[in-house]
Amino acid sequence: MAKTNPGRFFEDYSVGDVIRHAVPRTVSGGERALYHALYPARHALYSSDEFARACGLAESPIDDLAAFHIVFGKSVPDVSLNAVANLGYAEARWLRPVYAGDTLRSESEVIGVKQTSSGKTGIVWVRTTGLNQRDEPVLQFVRWVMVRKKDADAPAPAPEPVVPDTAPHVAPEDLVIPAGLDFSNYDLTLAGEPHRWGDYEVGETIDHVDGVTIEEAEHMMATRLWQNTSKTHFDVTPREDGKRLIYGGHVISMARALSFNGLANAQMIAAINAGSHVNPCFAGDTVRAWSEVLDRAQTAVPGIGALRLRLVATKGGEAFSLRGEDGKYLPHVLLDLDYWALMPI
Amino acid sequence: MAKTNPGRFFEDYSVGDVIRHAVPRTVSGGERALYHALYPARHALYSSDEFARACGLAESPIDDLAAFHIVFGKSVPDVSLNAVANLGYAEARWLRPVYAGDTLRSESEVIGVKQTSSGKTGIVWVRTTGLNQRDEPVLQFVRWVMVRKKDADAPAPAPEPVVPDTAPHVAPEDLVIPAGLDFSNYDLTLAGEPHRWGDYEVGETIDHVDGVTIEEAEHMMATRLWQNTSKTHFDVTPREDGKRLIYGGHVISMARALSFNGLANAQMIAAINAGSHVNPCFAGDTVRAWSEVLDRAQTAVPGIGALRLRLVATKGGEAFSLRGEDGKYLPHVLLDLDYWALMPI
Amino acid sequence: MAKTNPGRFFEDYSVGDVIRHAVPRTVSGGERALYHALYPARHALYSSDEFARACGLAESPIDDLAAFHIVFGKSVPDVSLNAVANLGYAEARWLRPVYAGDTLRSESEVIGVKQTSSGKTGIVWVRTTGLNQRDEPVLQFVRWVMVRKKDADAPAPAPEPVVPDTAPHVAPEDLVIPAGLDFSNYDLTLAGEPHRWGDYEVGETIDHVDGVTIEEAEHMMATRLWQNTSKTHFDVTPREDGKRLIYGGHVISMARALSFNGLANAQMIAAINAGSHVNPCFAGDTVRAWSEVLDRAQTAVPGIGALRLRLVATKGGEAFSLRGEDGKYLPHVLLDLDYWALMPI
Repeated sequence: MAKTNPGRFFEDYSVGDVIRHAVPRTVSGGERALYHALYPARHALYSSDEFARACGLAESPIDDLAAFHIVFGKSVPDVSLNAVANLGYAEARWLRPVYAGDTLRSESEVIGVKQTSSGKTGIVWVRTTGLNQRDEPVLQFVRWVMVRKKDADAPAPAPEPVVPDTAPHVAPEDLVIPAGLDFSNYDLTLAGEPHRWGDYEVGETIDHVDGVTIEEAEHMMATRLWQNTSKTHFDVTPREDGKRLIYGGHVISMARALSFNGLANAQMIAAINAGSHVNPCFAGDTVRAWSEVLDRAQTAVPGIGALRLRLVATKGGEAFSLRGEDGKYLPHVLLDLDYWALMPI
Repeated sequence: MAKTNPGRFFEDYSVGDVIRHAVPRTVSGGERALYHALYPARHALYSSDEFARACGLAESPIDDLAAFHIVFGKSVPDVSLNAVANLGYAEARWLRPVYAGDTLRSESEVIGVKQTSSGKTGIVWVRTTGLNQRDEPVLQFVRWVMVRKKDADAPAPAPEPVVPDTAPHVAPEDLVIPAGLDFSNYDLTLAGEPHRWGDYEVGETIDHVDGVTIEEAEHMMATRLWQNTSKTHFDVTPREDGKRLIYGGHVISMARALSFNGLANAQMIAAINAGSHVNPCFAGDTVRAWSEVLDRAQTAVPGIGALRLRLVATKGGEAFSLRGEDGKYLPHVLLDLDYWALMPI
Repeated sequence: MAKTNPGRFFEDYSVGDVIRHAVPRTVSGGERALYHALYPARHALYSSDEFARACGLAESPIDDLAAFHIVFGKSVPDVSLNAVANLGYAEARWLRPVYAGDTLRSESEVIGVKQTSSGKTGIVWVRTTGLNQRDEPVLQFVRWVMVRKKDADAPAPAPEPVVPDTAPHVAPEDLVIPAGLDFSNYDLTLAGEPHRWGDYEVGETIDHVDGVTIEEAEHMMATRLWQNTSKTHFDVTPREDGKRLIYGGHVISMARALSFNGLANAQMIAAINAGSHVNPCFAGDTVRAWSEVLDRAQTAVPGIGALRLRLVATKGGEAFSLRGEDGKYLPHVLLDLDYWALMPI
């Protein structure tokens, strides 16, 4: 038997299985500093312990997306090593901030399987949960991937296809507000912009203006930092064009960081409703971002509002362009992400 | 009204205004490690907690230039987003070491405004102060920038031009020696060189020998780490040559780190008297450095001397070459910096 | 006298000399995070404080190779600045884990000198020891380098050549098991693979499958982080081909990290028996690795086994190929390393 991990194939998943993923990870100020070196991240709650304390938290947490990438990265060897495609995300919710000194691990429950019509691949749905050293859940999300079958000619393995019923978006009442979070002493000047939750209108669009040209060393350092082992991000030899496909999460973090310029007070990500990596991103691409306000909601905590935002990352093209006349995403669009952010009302 | 920051124009500055800059930042061991990964920094006081304690400090501080870059970076969105040119620095003094766990913010007082003869731009002088979480000043500097007018055809906005009177250099008696600093147990072997303050003569020049070829990923990571948002450092699309202009502070840090070889005991930067980014630096340039001893002074603390140094960064050319026969800087000169360093006598 | 370090020449070494190397270094979570960003390192003991505690340690140590690189880097200015070649390593042993907050320094004893037949160079053997802030040794190794003579025409300086008698490999009974290390609660699932010490057979070979294409920014950041000042890694100008030679330790760390896939439970490096940097590595090379089990031994601590492994790094070529018919290393082989790792039995 080979000692190396061959990954799982479609036949290896059964609904109800819980997979404990390997390699727990303790985070420190090192991860925070690297996050700021890799992305133009400026949200004050994640930059300053003092600002975070003024908002009722113990100190500045690790960026929500850094926590997401770590939890996601652990699932790669068990979920997506033989994946043909990442098909989607749903029901991602942040449940508890992650602080320096916390140790994260993750586990995934298989919640759906369905062989595709070709008979050579199958779709697997998992609900992945990140847990800290006290076994408290810190975030959770559903994702589904298309996975190869070990034996393309074998019959469908599962007795019945199971397609889970995921919510089209997280309902505002299901957003989790971190314990103690309080925006009553929120300092707009230190945060960087005067716009509160009430200043944004549904339908409003914001061009985040700035662009960042991406380097190979940066996206590889980021992806390794999350211990994501997907070889397509690191090894130029399999592709004829000698390119490395950039981890989709790198584009999410870049776009979210760029969105500071216009959404500086959209401090915390509370949920991701849906997300698609529409076109591949490669080193040399200059990433830009724009946002659209999709919805607004009050939360259970006075003074904290939730803004539902579409965040689009592009590599050129007109601001606010998204789909062509045929309804398909335009070739310069990299990411279409739908999320909830928490803001001072 | 657009939600994104348009930056300030010349009309937006009045003498006496104090601008509180956004996004405070807590530093940790992560910033220190990254500084050592980005620059060949080896000064022992900034590398070893034990060495720093033997010199009377609580632990090893964040590099003086890292503190400078953080404080400077915060001022960019309010001071130099619409700057046509950074014209100069003066009266920069370090007032208190910055340690892991400290949170820095910065604010700038407008101390001068003067419309230029073209009528389309103006010069703005600011005194920027970095403060820690106890509101203690950690460093202060004057800089002046040429800024565009919002309306190029409007008359000069300020009633009278005000040109501040900045000192040609910081007087030695104005240098601040950190509380407790004591070189009586200074270990020259661990520090790396035997040369004390008394071994340097005014007029002496030192070729620091080593060179570092600069990469895009490195200068962008550095500049982002300081949360400096000036887009010219990150986005290749506005320039026809597809280059990114490297943040001048990256060149300062690189040259200072290279100067270890010959100035290993010039431990702390106490002041910057003046500095000019003479020619632009781009990825692929190989940066070298040389120094000239401009002055020597005793400080108020026994055993601690101050050396005034010219630090020149180049991208090739003969060591010690600076200006042509026409008095102009030679094209390979990147930086001409005049600073005070503290050394064991 | 020049203020810069000219390095030592063959004439400057005498058997019995002890050289205290400069610039002690305090490590933090920043170094750990950077190690994970620079290499695809996933060994759980070095990733999770919780996992390390379950194995009897105080917390997760700095990677063994990071500690090695730091100790090695300090010796460069005194040992290998004028080296023509690094000839070999022997008797490297890890004596004590290094934790965040520890300060490392290093010193080398000259244990051998021998002029070469050309009369223009000599071989110098040193035993280098890394020490923490309590002056406890953390690791030790012998290396030998070929160094230029200051005066190529002078007679051999040492009265008699001294060639030390180094062991062909570290005997298993000389391996140091960290105090408290205990694998009785070892969690194979969290560690990432089910293979225990007893599952590996002498002669077994493992292809670690994954490849990483190396970037200039990454190897320079790594090498600077270890404060290794050898200019050949940073400066493109001396070479006609404009290349930078990659620090051999970068290849060791990359290969070791890749070996997780198949050797996830080979948690700690206890010794390096021998190592050769067979061919140079440059940016753009895609590094792969394979291992061969050379020996197995029980240690003095129940439940902890030692596996002697050959770790080969390549830049292409067939897996498991090493030498040609002429007995010489094949041109795609970068590294041939022989080491002992500690595993749960």
